[in-house]
Amino acid sequence: MKDFAGTPGTLTGLFLRMAQCFFAAGAMASMVTTKGFFNVTAFCYLIASMALQVFWSIGLAFLDAYFLAKKKAFHNHVLLSLFVVGDWCTAILSLAAAASSAGITVLYFHDLGGCSFGDECTKFQLSVGFAFLSWITIFISSLIMFWIWAAG
Amino acid sequence: MKDFAGTPGTLTGLFLRMAQCFFAAGAMASMVTTKGFFNVTAFCYLIASMALQVFWSIGLAFLDAYFLAKKKAFHNHVLLSLFVVGDWCTAILSLAAAASSAGITVLYFHDLGGCSFGDECTKFQLSVGFAFLSWITIFISSLIMFWIWAAG
Repeated sequence: MKDFAGTPGTLTGLFLRMAQCFFAAGAMASMVTTKGFFNVTAFCYLIASMALQVFWSIGLAFLDAYFLAKKKAFHNHVLLSLFVVGDWCTAILSLAAAASSAGITVLYFHDLGGCSFGDECTKFQLSVGFAFLSWITIFISSLIMFWIWAAG
Repeated sequence: MKDFAGTPGTLTGLFLRMAQCFFAAGAMASMVTTKGFFNVTAFCYLIASMALQVFWSIGLAFLDAYFLAKKKAFHNHVLLSLFVVGDWCTAILSLAAAASSAGITVLYFHDLGGCSFGDECTKFQLSVGFAFLSWITIFISSLIMFWIWAAG
């Protein structure tokens, strides 16, 4: 199994996981603090998906930190397979959540001639932005994990 | 480079490409025949994304058919890298298009208490369904392509 930037047990890997947590938590926080999110299924789904992302990324961040502290490389192919599947599932769910919420945000802001929810409008946009950033970081992790799994 | 079901130049690979074309064309046809699609950005994006998918998949289907007819396996790593990137781009665009349109369809059908566009409602649902089926088939192709690229 190759060891390069972004693989489990490296500083870049830990940084990617922390970024995923941060962006997903940001998306969730922005959306939860709006009053009307529960009226739109896609926004509720965004919160659920980002919550799953936070838990998954925190778990793997702890694992990265553990391997970094012990100064050992991560070389378990069975566990890696599990992480590949988990990474891909959360990445797909995150992209779907970000895209569906983005579709509705664009509908409100552009297609219907402007958002009429006052302060909440900025929060919707912020939440969608954070969700896409979270997806980009989890997508990078997923590609790296799948690569070392396929090449290992 | 390994040769297994779904790799370029195999019958399964050709079948996957044909399925991608069929589903993407179905999604596009359902959406284009509605009167109001141009009022919603996400629906326009779905049509654009599915059109790109059709062109990409038809191109690769011809390539598969060519290699099948010549009874040769596909063993060009540079071209494969290009196809991996193209497959991943179209797969991500397809999922984003399907999810954003699904978000708006659910908004109309569920959150706003029912769809009020008459016959077009079924077409919106059909189009989103086809788009997701198209994404599933391109996702399988993308995984296989990335796998043989990483292992090759």
